Amino acid sequence: MPITRNIKITLAYDGSAFFGWQIQPGQRTVQGTLEGCLSRILGHRVSVIAAGRTDTGVHALSQVINVHTHTPIPTDRLLSALNNMLPHDITALSADTAAPEFHARYMTQSKQYVYIIDTAGPISPFLSRYVLHVEYKIDMCAMEKAAGYFVGEHDFTSFMGTGSCVKTTLRRVRASEVIQKKSKIYYFIEGDGFLRHMVRNIVGTLLLVARGKLDPDDIPQIIKNRDRSCAGPTAPARGLYLFKVNY
Amino acid sequence: MPITRNIKITLAYDGSAFFGWQIQPGQRTVQGTLEGCLSRILGHRVSVIAAGRTDTGVHALSQVINVHTHTPIPTDRLLSALNNMLPHDITALSADTAAPEFHARYMTQSKQYVYIIDTAGPISPFLSRYVLHVEYKIDMCAMEKAAGYFVGEHDFTSFMGTGSCVKTTLRRVRASEVIQKKSKIYYFIEGDGFLRHMVRNIVGTLLLVARGKLDPDDIPQIIKNRDRSCAGPTAPARGLYLFKVNY
Repeated sequence: MPITRNIKITLAYDGSAFFGWQIQPGQRTVQGTLEGCLSRILGHRVSVIAAGRTDTGVHALSQVINVHTHTPIPTDRLLSALNNMLPHDITALSADTAAPEFHARYMTQSKQYVYIIDTAGPISPFLSRYVLHVEYKIDMCAMEKAAGYFVGEHDFTSFMGTGSCVKTTLRRVRASEVIQKKSKIYYFIEGDGFLRHMVRNIVGTLLLVARGKLDPDDIPQIIKNRDRSCAGPTAPARGLYLFKVNY
Repeated sequence: MPITRNIKITLAYDGSAFFGWQIQPGQRTVQGTLEGCLSRILGHRVSVIAAGRTDTGVHALSQVINVHTHTPIPTDRLLSALNNMLPHDITALSADTAAPEFHARYMTQSKQYVYIIDTAGPISPFLSRYVLHVEYKIDMCAMEKAAGYFVGEHDFTSFMGTGSCVKTTLRRVRASEVIQKKSKIYYFIEGDGFLRHMVRNIVGTLLLVARGKLDPDDIPQIIKNRDRSCAGPTAPARGLYLFKVNY
């Protein structure tokens, strides 16, 4: 009987032309595209498991997936075959044999996201899929102060997208900081897990602070309220990148 | 009777989702998109003239166009209205009233193009629309030497795309050079005019030199032969940028 291996693959993708990660009939999704290519290479149907299911338009600098196969293909050959077959907006960065029990989603210790805001004007047409362009002046001090309030274990109901169904709305944020480099502002967040739209809802709220429409010291109360309507709007997907998955 | 003004507009665009510059029925083109927006803002039908009619997938960092209008809108208001209406992959950089005789195409003194080649592997999915990715080793010395042979006035028939109909195949190249920065190679070319696909056919030929399949000293003979089949293949559009138009 052939030996089944568990293969861990890291991927980068430009999410702008995908209808998100999760497979959906009639839509171009990252999962659907990847499973199609892997099935052809491995010669059998596969299901892949991803560390994080990114939304439509969200990018990945390092997404992690795992897939089981009994096909005896070396991982370096699998990697090159995959990159030959994948469309130009997905790149497989590495492929390695993992422990049989490795699970890309359940075994994550933490995930890191970065959100990129560009304040240069007018926006370059080459960046419009990859950053959120804002025209107003950003109060960096206020934004940094507000970002700090998200660190720790909190009930993030105020920042959860509607229509979610989760066991608990508690999440631990390990890092939440804002860095400015020239015209770009990078918001980094690391957490053990994220609710639906949580990063984009936090960014939307931070941007209210950044433009003076919300006091940074209001953030703790917004968290406490456990009410989505108290927080800011959902920031657009295009500025968001799954940056790193830690196991 | 209203005064007709001639307005000069500079544009940047990401060519990857356009069927080139020139208007074509049923296709998304830069000209068609721009004329649609300008007609709505100015309140009358317009025809725009571009310095260079870029092919499908070719980008522009600074394209120049002119348009005639009798609508008395200030150029700064026209610029902001245009950027509000244009899709995310075209940006208007400036709008100014030009001399009545200004013609964006016929009055060019020279045009500069840059072609970007990336040798890092595997290619980033975020760059795949914007560079040519090559996996072979580049001989920079040979490529630089070959590039130099294009400078001067030559009959560029060997580098003209098929199906062209031009009065003369003579063109003057003012500069032709290769610069390497980390994993990227930039080929800059400036000329008083270019034949169809001329830059991409020169790049395709330079890449044969770069990978050792052609001797740089063969270039003068290839030019002399006035035979398209002697030169290299047409490099893909995605690495090519209209960089600057000089009047």
